Amino acid sequence: MSEAAPATRRRTRGGGGGAARRADRTTVRLEVAKYIERNIPNFEVLTEEALEIIENNAETILEEIGVHFPDNPGALKRWADAGADVDGERVRIPRGLARELIKTAPSEYTQHARNPDRNVRVGGNSMVLAPVYGPPFVRDVNGGRRYATMADFQKMVKLTYMSKWLHHSGGTVCEPTDIAVNKRHLDMLYAHMTLSDKPYMGSVTAPERAVDSVKMSEILFGGSLENKTVMTSLININSPLTFDEIMMGAMEVYAKNNQACIVSPFIVGGAMAPVSVAGTLAQVMAEGLAGVAYNQLCNPGAPVIFGAFVSSIDMNSGAPTFGTPEASKILYGAGQIARRLGLPFRSGGALCGSKLPDAQAAYETANTLNAALLGGVNFCLHAAGWLEGGLVTSFEKFVMDADQLGVLHSIAKGVDMSENGQALDAVREVGPGGHYLGCAHTQANFKDSFWKSQLLDYKPFETWSDEGGKDTMQLASERVERMMGEYTQPPLDPAIDEALQAYMEERKASEPDAFV
Amino acid sequence: MSEAAPATRRRTRGGGGGAARRADRTTVRLEVAKYIERNIPNFEVLTEEALEIIENNAETILEEIGVHFPDNPGALKRWADAGADVDGERVRIPRGLARELIKTAPSEYTQHARNPDRNVRVGGNSMVLAPVYGPPFVRDVNGGRRYATMADFQKMVKLTYMSKWLHHSGGTVCEPTDIAVNKRHLDMLYAHMTLSDKPYMGSVTAPERAVDSVKMSEILFGGSLENKTVMTSLININSPLTFDEIMMGAMEVYAKNNQACIVSPFIVGGAMAPVSVAGTLAQVMAEGLAGVAYNQLCNPGAPVIFGAFVSSIDMNSGAPTFGTPEASKILYGAGQIARRLGLPFRSGGALCGSKLPDAQAAYETANTLNAALLGGVNFCLHAAGWLEGGLVTSFEKFVMDADQLGVLHSIAKGVDMSENGQALDAVREVGPGGHYLGCAHTQANFKDSFWKSQLLDYKPFETWSDEGGKDTMQLASERVERMMGEYTQPPLDPAIDEALQAYMEERKASEPDAFV
Repeated sequence: MSEAAPATRRRTRGGGGGAARRADRTTVRLEVAKYIERNIPNFEVLTEEALEIIENNAETILEEIGVHFPDNPGALKRWADAGADVDGERVRIPRGLARELIKTAPSEYTQHARNPDRNVRVGGNSMVLAPVYGPPFVRDVNGGRRYATMADFQKMVKLTYMSKWLHHSGGTVCEPTDIAVNKRHLDMLYAHMTLSDKPYMGSVTAPERAVDSVKMSEILFGGSLENKTVMTSLININSPLTFDEIMMGAMEVYAKNNQACIVSPFIVGGAMAPVSVAGTLAQVMAEGLAGVAYNQLCNPGAPVIFGAFVSSIDMNSGAPTFGTPEASKILYGAGQIARRLGLPFRSGGALCGSKLPDAQAAYETANTLNAALLGGVNFCLHAAGWLEGGLVTSFEKFVMDADQLGVLHSIAKGVDMSENGQALDAVREVGPGGHYLGCAHTQANFKDSFWKSQLLDYKPFETWSDEGGKDTMQLASERVERMMGEYTQPPLDPAIDEALQAYMEERKASEPDAFV
Repeated sequence: MSEAAPATRRRTRGGGGGAARRADRTTVRLEVAKYIERNIPNFEVLTEEALEIIENNAETILEEIGVHFPDNPGALKRWADAGADVDGERVRIPRGLARELIKTAPSEYTQHARNPDRNVRVGGNSMVLAPVYGPPFVRDVNGGRRYATMADFQKMVKLTYMSKWLHHSGGTVCEPTDIAVNKRHLDMLYAHMTLSDKPYMGSVTAPERAVDSVKMSEILFGGSLENKTVMTSLININSPLTFDEIMMGAMEVYAKNNQACIVSPFIVGGAMAPVSVAGTLAQVMAEGLAGVAYNQLCNPGAPVIFGAFVSSIDMNSGAPTFGTPEASKILYGAGQIARRLGLPFRSGGALCGSKLPDAQAAYETANTLNAALLGGVNFCLHAAGWLEGGLVTSFEKFVMDADQLGVLHSIAKGVDMSENGQALDAVREVGPGGHYLGCAHTQANFKDSFWKSQLLDYKPFETWSDEGGKDTMQLASERVERMMGEYTQPPLDPAIDEALQAYMEERKASEPDAFV
């Protein structure tokens, strides 16, 4: 396939001549797709008039209500110097100021990976897919639901590395709860840096952990990052309208080091934003404008993504819900806002509320992934493995979602209108009542014509039944095991590996373990 | 909800005063949504230039290759009279002739139901949802996969009647294999006419069965149907480019009686059409043009829908596959073609290849339903209950799909940009760091703000786990039982019922049973 950048590698079990021959027979091609470049239009749910109303409301929110920057005198000073009205920790931003400040933000940027074939372009018509972020639990068919460990984390990094349609290794693919809270970021970074060669995210849970992320990245990439963006990290806004000092502190570190941030309202609609789509969009726009503007105040020109993570609330249980029509409409609208502001856009993912990787999970996920593609998402976090409202990383759901991401790649290509794509000679050859299976055009094209699932069942009923009548969860469980059996680590200069380990050891020795 | 036309009805278990009070307490409001009226744009994957190329290729196919009308001298005469080049059973249609002939077809029409509140509008910005059509098997959790019977058929009609988001009772919701092939159409029609008051489809398996459908409908509606369309029936084209005499015979009956037909290529891409999207679209357009033109030759002005049922093929097993990117692109493109021709458009559905209502089924279904909504489908057959590539009607999948159809209704509404929708006062009231759960705007709006599933699980993990950790299939099974327990038949004039039964008896007595 033309978009795949293949790398040949071998299983390395056993030794000697016989093993070498076996290894030769079992050589596995690791196919990795290039990030998506959309050749299709964006779906736009808002008219130009509606967009203008929402922008006007966002400016009113910033000017009249303002945003909150608690415990962050440096931020308040930056805002005051920029011309905002600072009243205690409340920052009121005069109409137009935020739009002016964000003008220095690039509309696209490249995030470098240690393997340059894995570099990703973020913005414009691109779409970059990264795995689930944040769950404290993992689940699989065999072990059920349990607290995540570093072993689970490593497994997710390996699965992501091996997955053709994921372009990015992500960040906290699950929380390694068996490692001290103040040290686990080091092990997480080390796993991304050594078990994969795809781009990754930095730590945001404390400013000093962002510094560690920068320093370890300098070791990995062999020098200053001043002119090289190698991390895209997730800065959540504490909606409504609050920018807490820990997230802002991490963002300040990344911005000053020319590393990318996703500035993202985190909204359960009805709790952290109004129960209406247009009201939520105005708040999302106000928060995004303030966050991106602050990012640019820290370092004009730093790469930054306009994010929108929005779910609905179930008014009975208070639980967040996913794959809902309101979430889709907000995603489409937020994409229009990001493009209006000339910023890369983050939203979507394999979002669902289900406790199991069952039909509910898949409906909710597919609703969200389809909206993400058509809504013009440039950076899609949580694109595989998300379960139970983000509380759980599911290995089986990861491979299910990762398979579906292939569908997005193929839709994004649009329609081939070349002479070969038009296939008029095939219709001439076959004629009324014939069939196309053996015709020349089919023979020449069938291998690349149709997207092909690596997971789903297409067997005749009898075969499927004789083989045990497996559901998708069972097929996925088998695929996880198969992939883990085939994993081999991408090569890394041993000197860099040693330097990374030395840095981690020194940092770990410098303070006692903390578990909260 | 403003789009719902509610009907109050009562459970009628037991008798006497106590039972009456209990009945009062358990009165169930049967909510039925109006057909969807889209307030959102269509997603268009083809440029104007691409559309022109495809139309040009379609005209070339019609003119140069032509279409096949076997065993149908009447059709060949009509074509010759209209100016086509008839060579044996091959009809070559000069460039532009089909486009000219279809000009008499209405761009929209109303299909009447015996309950006028259930009338549907087909075309323009409408979307009408009907259940699965055609499977010889049924499946449920308790009984597994088995041949369908009339009891299963009746159960599907009842479930569809009770489902808020389905506007149409459909046709062959499953094949009642326990009734003679030459008589089952009578029982199927009688079930739709008496167990539901939603609009329905007529029989197409023989021209005389189409006549029975018209005559029974005349009884039900109390007179001639000349000025009243009360059926929309499915006429499949035998792709590539073949219009068999049975389907055409049924269509001739319907067209002459002013009843609507869906003229629909039935394509497994790669077998009945080229392995490319643009090639398939040219063939779909040629077939649709020829079929609709022939419909108008039978009766200019008869209501007719441009259909496109297209799946892909799995090149390993030869099985049709669903929810694929190619199918979505063809759906989007076919919608553009239908609108270019000014015809109502049929495509999509809850299509999947999975053997079980599991995650595979849901991913594939959601991919197709989302494409159907955004691609501008006006009549969506198979919108609920389809399983295993159309071989199986699944009761559990029916209620899962029927629930998801609510998502489509809500997305189609677009964004409320009223002052209440903008909710600026809510943002003012809550301010930075607050929450919206108790604010005035939320209190006034929360009941109608968010689409709410009637099926999916939103409970906290512990509650869900304590209640047995049910997956979607189990929840759906319980919902099927609950709905069947609540079903009561809509009233019908006993004289009409008797007349329908008398007609059926006479027809059944007129010929021996046939089982093939």
